[in-house]
Amino acid sequence: MNRREPLGVAVIGTGRMGADHVRRIDRVISGARVVAVADTDAERAKAVAATVDGCTAHTDPAAAMAAAGVDAVLIASPGPAHEAALLAAFERDLPVLCEKPLTPDAAGALRVMEAEQALGHRRVQVGFMRRYDAEYVKLKALLTSGQLGRPLMLHNRHRNVASPPFFTSAMLISDSVAHEVDATRWLLGQEITAVTVLRPTPSSGAPEGLSDPQFVILETSGGALSDVEIFVNCGFGYQVQAEVVCERGTARIGDGHALITNMAGRWGGIIAQDFTERFAQAYDDEVQAWVDSTRRGEVTGPGTWDGYAAAAVCEAGVRALEQGGRVDVALVDRPPLYR
Amino acid sequence: MNRREPLGVAVIGTGRMGADHVRRIDRVISGARVVAVADTDAERAKAVAATVDGCTAHTDPAAAMAAAGVDAVLIASPGPAHEAALLAAFERDLPVLCEKPLTPDAAGALRVMEAEQALGHRRVQVGFMRRYDAEYVKLKALLTSGQLGRPLMLHNRHRNVASPPFFTSAMLISDSVAHEVDATRWLLGQEITAVTVLRPTPSSGAPEGLSDPQFVILETSGGALSDVEIFVNCGFGYQVQAEVVCERGTARIGDGHALITNMAGRWGGIIAQDFTERFAQAYDDEVQAWVDSTRRGEVTGPGTWDGYAAAAVCEAGVRALEQGGRVDVALVDRPPLYR
Amino acid sequence: MNRREPLGVAVIGTGRMGADHVRRIDRVISGARVVAVADTDAERAKAVAATVDGCTAHTDPAAAMAAAGVDAVLIASPGPAHEAALLAAFERDLPVLCEKPLTPDAAGALRVMEAEQALGHRRVQVGFMRRYDAEYVKLKALLTSGQLGRPLMLHNRHRNVASPPFFTSAMLISDSVAHEVDATRWLLGQEITAVTVLRPTPSSGAPEGLSDPQFVILETSGGALSDVEIFVNCGFGYQVQAEVVCERGTARIGDGHALITNMAGRWGGIIAQDFTERFAQAYDDEVQAWVDSTRRGEVTGPGTWDGYAAAAVCEAGVRALEQGGRVDVALVDRPPLYR
Amino acid sequence: MNRREPLGVAVIGTGRMGADHVRRIDRVISGARVVAVADTDAERAKAVAATVDGCTAHTDPAAAMAAAGVDAVLIASPGPAHEAALLAAFERDLPVLCEKPLTPDAAGALRVMEAEQALGHRRVQVGFMRRYDAEYVKLKALLTSGQLGRPLMLHNRHRNVASPPFFTSAMLISDSVAHEVDATRWLLGQEITAVTVLRPTPSSGAPEGLSDPQFVILETSGGALSDVEIFVNCGFGYQVQAEVVCERGTARIGDGHALITNMAGRWGGIIAQDFTERFAQAYDDEVQAWVDSTRRGEVTGPGTWDGYAAAAVCEAGVRALEQGGRVDVALVDRPPLYR
Repeated sequence: MNRREPLGVAVIGTGRMGADHVRRIDRVISGARVVAVADTDAERAKAVAATVDGCTAHTDPAAAMAAAGVDAVLIASPGPAHEAALLAAFERDLPVLCEKPLTPDAAGALRVMEAEQALGHRRVQVGFMRRYDAEYVKLKALLTSGQLGRPLMLHNRHRNVASPPFFTSAMLISDSVAHEVDATRWLLGQEITAVTVLRPTPSSGAPEGLSDPQFVILETSGGALSDVEIFVNCGFGYQVQAEVVCERGTARIGDGHALITNMAGRWGGIIAQDFTERFAQAYDDEVQAWVDSTRRGEVTGPGTWDGYAAAAVCEAGVRALEQGGRVDVALVDRPPLYR
Repeated sequence: MNRREPLGVAVIGTGRMGADHVRRIDRVISGARVVAVADTDAERAKAVAATVDGCTAHTDPAAAMAAAGVDAVLIASPGPAHEAALLAAFERDLPVLCEKPLTPDAAGALRVMEAEQALGHRRVQVGFMRRYDAEYVKLKALLTSGQLGRPLMLHNRHRNVASPPFFTSAMLISDSVAHEVDATRWLLGQEITAVTVLRPTPSSGAPEGLSDPQFVILETSGGALSDVEIFVNCGFGYQVQAEVVCERGTARIGDGHALITNMAGRWGGIIAQDFTERFAQAYDDEVQAWVDSTRRGEVTGPGTWDGYAAAAVCEAGVRALEQGGRVDVALVDRPPLYR
Repeated sequence: MNRREPLGVAVIGTGRMGADHVRRIDRVISGARVVAVADTDAERAKAVAATVDGCTAHTDPAAAMAAAGVDAVLIASPGPAHEAALLAAFERDLPVLCEKPLTPDAAGALRVMEAEQALGHRRVQVGFMRRYDAEYVKLKALLTSGQLGRPLMLHNRHRNVASPPFFTSAMLISDSVAHEVDATRWLLGQEITAVTVLRPTPSSGAPEGLSDPQFVILETSGGALSDVEIFVNCGFGYQVQAEVVCERGTARIGDGHALITNMAGRWGGIIAQDFTERFAQAYDDEVQAWVDSTRRGEVTGPGTWDGYAAAAVCEAGVRALEQGGRVDVALVDRPPLYR
Repeated sequence: MNRREPLGVAVIGTGRMGADHVRRIDRVISGARVVAVADTDAERAKAVAATVDGCTAHTDPAAAMAAAGVDAVLIASPGPAHEAALLAAFERDLPVLCEKPLTPDAAGALRVMEAEQALGHRRVQVGFMRRYDAEYVKLKALLTSGQLGRPLMLHNRHRNVASPPFFTSAMLISDSVAHEVDATRWLLGQEITAVTVLRPTPSSGAPEGLSDPQFVILETSGGALSDVEIFVNCGFGYQVQAEVVCERGTARIGDGHALITNMAGRWGGIIAQDFTERFAQAYDDEVQAWVDSTRRGEVTGPGTWDGYAAAAVCEAGVRALEQGGRVDVALVDRPPLYR
């Protein structure tokens, strides 16, 4: 199959994350449209549905999945509701993108795995979005290339400005370090075999009773170590950093640079070789901005006057190149339309 | 107007840049579709049209613009063909995104401006895509904020690995420095009043007869200076850098970091405050990847096994947190479906 | 006391480190001179003594300490010889700079402490030279300032290109991590209360049987954690890095920058405020180079021709400033003396 | 000649720079001592002389040069006084380190050159201390190595927080850019053949009437360009940066890193290979600190307790390595002598 028509998606859960996915499918990405949403809060579901042409609102996830035109399901409801929603999607044999966690506990995840195996084919993608982050993707590619040799250790930092009021000490593991758990498994291509959690004296910036920061050590099936500083009330910013230490060098991401390596007596990064690499996103954003403003009936961005001014300056520049010295640029008066 | 249905776009020119825009509208961005393409090379037009459902191929730009469902025009033909295509679009009063240069010379640009003024409203956006690059956008926002005071100088570096065979010394100005001409005007909000071009002894890496590198000095209506190193055979990579020197500090982009400022005794950059800021693109890419693979009938990305493994590790982690010491992680055997 | 005459130093041990200290006292620093050296290898002692005017060579440390003009002792012999040398210095009540380790074991160190207490005053400085490294000094000053709040965790990396042939797994701790042990105590101002050592699968770049790398976790009396990656066969370079994570920010040193902080939404470093700060070392090196070459009867460095050329260019520059445009620089022919 | 005894130096001028050189020779570097100083301000000369054992004070430079034990002269008086002092030193055939500028004008420099040629041998080193700065030295070495190919352009930034009250527009050239004039000549190994000075609208942070910043373009005998941003009231810090653009790559210094290169698709820097390279200065500073405190009759720095604590922790660490798990560290009570 390689379908031409857009994928019809039912979005389950219209809280912060679900509503953002609806916006994303409707206005950012290509090839899909939201045809139904579901939320236990009927008003919230309706409000979100109203932002999309032809989208229906439901309170029952199964009803949303049964709506006309649904080809796939995106689950963004709270974790405890995931298992039921996944099983409902499996009943209709629909592909699913399920936000993390798959389920809050391993037992629930095992039941989901069994149900999916009963279907006989894979239907679920789990929302570990770091695997799609450009820096992580480059780090993974570098590890896969073998240039650095076998990975021995992975050092992770995960810092949030402040934790939400309901956050517990256990959630630093199950909600936050969960990302490093997947990143460790994915980057190293190994399972995790043991966990140790160390608790330094909490920061006075952390809420009373919260064990924050924590230092977590993951051991892997290949004999590697992955340590994680998790600090959810660091106060200064959101920072996700990773450094892989390999047999012949190290590579790190997340500190305001792109990927930085240590190798053979040199530290540093890659220089793009082409404007399509350096400015790919700028081209996407430019054309999206033009489409959006045109649909609104507006003209934004650089206009004809800017094109003219550039042409006039370049003409003067070419004269300056050819004859030497300084060449004045003369522009016509700026017409009212372009002021 | 705030139309719901996708914008129908005619793409004029299906060379490298035009074909890439067709792909972008079809598969990357949201809210538009390509309904017609035109190219003087009929075969090339047909080949590109065949990649998009319901897209027609033409050799005459005006015919493409007249095709059913065309709401807007994207011009990506060679520069000398722009003026005629723009005037044809004006005849139909269609909004246009015109790749740079607007026209190869100032005289042509003036004629386009006159025609647009005759329409009575603006219709043209010119493809100066640096205005949409995340780093330039941050630099512009910082200048607009006034934190650094008035800009005094702008230092630009523009380096390409190697120039194409047809490149002339004048094209270093009209084709390459053209970008810095617009960036200078946009960042400083001033017109350029004079140009000087200096020619150091050419690099031995440049083709015989090409004056490469060049050093260009732009003077502006506000008394600022903008200097440009243009070096199109630097050999080592594609690099676009800019540093604005203001009354109270400087800010630079393009050297492998994000925006770096010098201010009040400190150099450095911004730390994101939120995961939506840091990982916005990763979420977009994740959902796009899911939509794309689902439309192909495939499941890619992290799956149920990964969700289960993360749940099992986090459970062990929470136990390790609560009881202290090292806790083993026990996973079930990996079922064949997930191998 | 605030003595004017140079300090007379006996250097015990003239191996690599001892010989380097002799050179340092003789040719780099001010206010001291080497008057005696001792080494169990009499030839080596003589060879080193011969590089310094009036320096005597000995095989017995106590004899070197008894030599005429000895005011202080620098111990750079192998660790097992330290205790006896320290006690010999105490007999003469001489101040000592003792290379690390003070003694190879805690029991020996306790005996030295008892002997020093019997003297009734402190006589020993131990060679933990990281406390004198400019980056560590800045990190300590920042912690002391309280700007970042209380330290919670310290992450250390300690990497060597390759270990010497005699290196054992235990020496990664006692010889290498010993530096981080002191740095942790000094930076945090706390004692260490517990140690854990984790051993990932060794690198294939490490000698057979050597457990390299290791990951060490130090717990402190104030409830902080200090983790150390020690990797003595990393292959790519010598790297010592430290990041302190505090309640309101983090600070790190050692990755090719100076001190970098994360604080209040910004990452970055300090900009010097004055040329004396930025170029202090350059002035020291310049005058030292002049003194050294003058003592050799030579003139090196920039000379009169360079002073003349600078004056001529600056004269032209001032004319260019005043009259605008480009001003040629005319130099006299370069006289033979300056070629 | 390769003299053993310290060089006797007469320092001419005891203002800020001269007094600092006296301190440097007396307390920082090795192999020289100040035996005489001269200043037109007799009180100032006496005050400085009083800081050095056996140093005499004079008002006449020639008298200071004639004092007993003078082997060499360091001239740090104001620029207009340099010529006379140099000629006086030539009369006694004494080696001279002359602070920049050699003379304020080219004519004076020519007379000095003639006098030196009449001596028949070189006697003068001019105080262009950037040639001794570690970053410039590395940049020069990289250029000399030929790795980057021939230099084509040099971009310089020279920024001061604020200019002193007496600073004139011409002094931005003759006092500040003078450093880049020498750095350009030295780094490129070429003479400067023409100068252009551009004046953007002055910063509102500059004193009334001062043309600050300026942008200076130096052309060289080898066809290279060197541009200099000089901005002496930038407000935010003291910054000296240089980037050389060569045929096969670029290298820059001065932005808070060490030397950074762009080469063959990668940007980055060098990693030290050895602790003697990374910590050379720390060893010098450690031994100097020990000598200084010992001469004052004090013990500073890490002491016996620190040596003991490190030994005890390392013992526990080795046990932890060998037996696995967490090992407590037990320290004896800290004796009063070490509190």
